[in-house]
Amino acid sequence: MVKRMDLNFQKSDGLVTAVIQDHVSGRVLMVGFMNEEAFRKTVETGFATFYSRSRQKLWLKGETSGHRLVVKEISADCDSDALLIRVEPLGPGVCHEGYQSCFFRRLKDGEWVVSDARAYDPASIYGGKA
Amino acid sequence: MVKRMDLNFQKSDGLVTAVIQDHVSGRVLMVGFMNEEAFRKTVETGFATFYSRSRQKLWLKGETSGHRLVVKEISADCDSDALLIRVEPLGPGVCHEGYQSCFFRRLKDGEWVVSDARAYDPASIYGGKA
Repeated sequence: MVKRMDLNFQKSDGLVTAVIQDHVSGRVLMVGFMNEEAFRKTVETGFATFYSRSRQKLWLKGETSGHRLVVKEISADCDSDALLIRVEPLGPGVCHEGYQSCFFRRLKDGEWVVSDARAYDPASIYGGKA
Repeated sequence: MVKRMDLNFQKSDGLVTAVIQDHVSGRVLMVGFMNEEAFRKTVETGFATFYSRSRQKLWLKGETSGHRLVVKEISADCDSDALLIRVEPLGPGVCHEGYQSCFFRRLKDGEWVVSDARAYDPASIYGGKA
């Protein structure tokens, strides 16, 4: 049986956008990119795997921190070039800067203002490199 | 007073990713892209404005359908290359295919399956072009 998980990887140099949302709270945690291999690994392993544009290689989220993202549900958008992945995040936060969500700054009167408290100390996880 | 709304438009050919989320339900409605002008117009007008990669021009969401997105809150991610925009959507749905959200297909047993009911008839809005 042929499975059809076709996505449009052509519009963005072989990548689709992946929005990561906490499946319980609904909070948007981060945005990453997946190439076809990262998407396949995400589906096969059940852990969100991205393609790092800066490092130009696959990136299992949590490979350093242990803060993996357990996939609960995957949706595709109408253009098949964006994914919405609802996850159970392992660990206190997905952001390498120590926050629950990478979206920890809000626009207020024309400036970005930190709107969250840190959820963990990134130095204790990333050895001060973050 | 200098306002600092700096974002990193360099990583994706002058664009940042914009995730659109319903500010009441928390549902992720769509993903679009903004160049610097689209972002500025979004902030200034209070209506989400994107840059259409296919049409290569600014795109006020709802300019055809009337289904504008009223901006309630804007957050930036740690890399300053993605935005989370919480909105009040005007109209029954943001998707040009007639759904509340563009993410209306879920991955089930290796295939994309429509998981929502249509919220409106796209032919009545887009004249059958959608």
